[in-house]
Amino acid sequence: MSSTAGLVIPCTAAVAWEAGKPLVMERVEVAPPQAMEVRIKIKYTSLCHTDLYFWEAKGQTPLFPRIFGHEASGIVESVGEGVEGLEVGDHVLPVFTGECGDCAHCKSEESNMCDLLRINTDRGVMLSDGKTRFSINGTPINHFLGTSTFSEYTVIHSGCLAKINPLAPLDIVCILSCGISTGLGATLNVAKPKKGSSVAFFGLGAVGLAAAEGARISGASRIIGVDRNPKRFEEAKKFGVNEFVNPKDHDKPVQEVIAEMTNGGADRSIECTGNINAMISAFECVHDGWGVAVLVGVPNKDAVFMTKPINVLNERTLKGTFFGNYKPRTDLPLVVEMYMSKKLEVEKFITHRVPFSEINKAFDYMTKGEGLRCIVSMEE
Amino acid sequence: MSSTAGLVIPCTAAVAWEAGKPLVMERVEVAPPQAMEVRIKIKYTSLCHTDLYFWEAKGQTPLFPRIFGHEASGIVESVGEGVEGLEVGDHVLPVFTGECGDCAHCKSEESNMCDLLRINTDRGVMLSDGKTRFSINGTPINHFLGTSTFSEYTVIHSGCLAKINPLAPLDIVCILSCGISTGLGATLNVAKPKKGSSVAFFGLGAVGLAAAEGARISGASRIIGVDRNPKRFEEAKKFGVNEFVNPKDHDKPVQEVIAEMTNGGADRSIECTGNINAMISAFECVHDGWGVAVLVGVPNKDAVFMTKPINVLNERTLKGTFFGNYKPRTDLPLVVEMYMSKKLEVEKFITHRVPFSEINKAFDYMTKGEGLRCIVSMEE
Ligand SMILES: NC(=O)c1ccc[n+]([C@@H]2O[C@H](COP(=O)([O-])OP(=O)(O)OC[C@H]3O[C@@H](n4cnc5c(N)ncnc54)[C@H](O)[C@@H]3O)[C@@H](O)[C@H]2O)c1
Ligand SMILES: NC(=O)c1ccc[n+]([C@@H]2O[C@H](COP(=O)([O-])OP(=O)(O)OC[C@H]3O[C@@H](n4cnc5c(N)ncnc54)[C@H](O)[C@@H]3O)[C@@H](O)[C@H]2O)c1
Ligand SMILES: [Zn+2]
Ligand SMILES: [Zn+2]
Ligand SMILES: [Zn+2]
Ligand SMILES: [Zn+2]
Repeated sequence: MSSTAGLVIPCTAAVAWEAGKPLVMERVEVAPPQAMEVRIKIKYTSLCHTDLYFWEAKGQTPLFPRIFGHEASGIVESVGEGVEGLEVGDHVLPVFTGECGDCAHCKSEESNMCDLLRINTDRGVMLSDGKTRFSINGTPINHFLGTSTFSEYTVIHSGCLAKINPLAPLDIVCILSCGISTGLGATLNVAKPKKGSSVAFFGLGAVGLAAAEGARISGASRIIGVDRNPKRFEEAKKFGVNEFVNPKDHDKPVQEVIAEMTNGGADRSIECTGNINAMISAFECVHDGWGVAVLVGVPNKDAVFMTKPINVLNERTLKGTFFGNYKPRTDLPLVVEMYMSKKLEVEKFITHRVPFSEINKAFDYMTKGEGLRCIVSMEE
Repeated sequence: MSSTAGLVIPCTAAVAWEAGKPLVMERVEVAPPQAMEVRIKIKYTSLCHTDLYFWEAKGQTPLFPRIFGHEASGIVESVGEGVEGLEVGDHVLPVFTGECGDCAHCKSEESNMCDLLRINTDRGVMLSDGKTRFSINGTPINHFLGTSTFSEYTVIHSGCLAKINPLAPLDIVCILSCGISTGLGATLNVAKPKKGSSVAFFGLGAVGLAAAEGARISGASRIIGVDRNPKRFEEAKKFGVNEFVNPKDHDKPVQEVIAEMTNGGADRSIECTGNINAMISAFECVHDGWGVAVLVGVPNKDAVFMTKPINVLNERTLKGTFFGNYKPRTDLPLVVEMYMSKKLEVEKFITHRVPFSEINKAFDYMTKGEGLRCIVSMEE
């Protein structure tokens, strides 16, 4: 038992009061975990584009005040009633989607979309009682994705926590809790490129480059990066991306450019932008007969995917994935082991580090498209 | 060598002079086969909806005069230069798509969309010389799908002919050359439902019911038929279809009706209508996490498939297939053997028979939605 168990913990959190306005460092009160919940001391967190989308709230439902953050690592501070398999001191990665273990999805080999704990971007409260665990002078502050890791302490459903190897460095594996696993799994679990095949990646942010890392691990020979930001290309070379296409450099649709480069289309494509046009291009750029396109990016809520049905009939496959089809509790510890055994390279994704007090810099880097992941250290 | 080899054969063909107008029985001249081509004496032919679409030419490119027909059985009359593996007297099924054996598709395990011989609905001539083999008093008559089986004799590329067991009854296996194999393969080769799973079929014509026959063979337990024509339901019971939905009976979209019936969505769906709304419903009615939807129907050329990207991201898969992903020369003889060994039931698809002179009756039956397949006997 930790000395704070059962007590409200006052601590610092970065609160978003309004859409698109810099986060404000505030003293918040974090209530103890309820049944099936766990309170975590966050050690490191990083910024993923999904945080930025909901903070900007341009194409998404606004919900403020809110504590964002879902890519993180931490240590269990205390556990609520009924929690099994997690103890004070365990090293954990919080995940924006969960694994209850009991529903049809958790029991299916194919799905990781747990009925109980799947991602819900519009919910700002905990499942059990419909309330928040955060407050400032009695004013409740909304949660985000059930994780809210931009806080020194946070409360998370036990089904959304992966217990990992305690030897894994938390300031690195932190980014495996969302973006990197999402991209990696999109390739390894969903697109499954064959050795020697061609794979196109739309969006060379951390998620897209993690998908490319999956292609490198799979032995794909042509790793084609597509981005509208040419700054991304230099960095992407470190990730085995060996051909580049900037849609802005071409008059014709990028799917046609890729079809010409690949003698009819890429064997696989993976979209990691959130942009609907990129989603359509990613689908239409794969080879007929056998091409598989995988959508990963989170779209604006009014976006519509449109294509001529003949593109489907010509034996193309369209798939989507959340969190790279990894089951968070079962599979994430194994992704950490892939890093520990040096099969997966993670350090190269980390381009910036800031102390918690400067978290708004991480937003600036992402808005400007600079670097990949910025690690925020909670203890500095 | 047959006595007619190398000569022009005058014979009877049912010619479509104008869109939507009854076919006219005409004396046509059928030129000898050129290199890699084979001339076939058609024994039986049947009508598939694809013939009807291009004959009506409402949502398709009109091309007249034309000899339609692509579902048939026949016997080799003579072979052109360079043809291997086919001899005079062989029993064959013509196929609207081919298998050259050499291209990337033919070499791929996944594709049957041969680069050289794939379906081309707008071409009315033979590949080798860009000319037709049919003429009436010197006026060329267009081919359809490279098969044009509504003629006593026709010329077909050797890559579009499956050599079958000579013991197979040609008046029955005739329908394996398009519709039945298309539906069956869509289930067995593409949707691959597991034992005990739920499968929804959109369109209970011959193709949709052949897909249902595939579900019966796979051991699916819930076989849900969707059609706007309630006449289809009685017939469909013979095919193991055990639940029915008529979209006209519901105020809400049929995908919602199916999601309610199946606790979240069908495990698989197969669209065999050609209607774009049915295609969208078929996709949206499958279960998130693991559902797979397969499109089979031939759409109007201006139709657009539209769905919210979240439906894809929620781990649904969309696939399309031509000819049930069967490679015509390699796989079709094996489908005939499935019939010969009584694993596959074919007779139940044959609801009408007419002599060649009454071929327009087959069009009437299909236009009215009566029955499934009408066999046209060329020798009556
Ligand atoms: N499905 C999931 O489980 C999941 C998990 C995490 C992140 N995501 C999503 O994945 C996407 C990528 O995340 P990230 O953190 O790597 O973001 P990021 O901002 O670092 O990278 C996105 C990249 O896409 C590029 N881009 C944008 N529009 C483009 C277009 N039309 N064509 C080509 N390139 C384009 C940008 O220039 C940028 O380099 C986001 O949409 C994020 O919300 C999804
Ligand atoms: N992809 C291929 O390789 C291939 C091969 C053969 C046929 N086809 C296509 O398959 C489709 C079916 O062929 P068929 O010969 O069985 O045709 P059919 O006319 O016998 O059957 C089609 C059925 O669909 C029903 N239908 C139409 N619109 C509907 C809707 N919105 N909702 C529910 N039901 C609807 C009709 O009532 C009819 O019963 C056609 O589009 C045909 O062109 C494709
Ligand atoms: Zn994320
Ligand atoms: Zn679950
Ligand atoms: Zn057909
Ligand atoms: Zn070929």
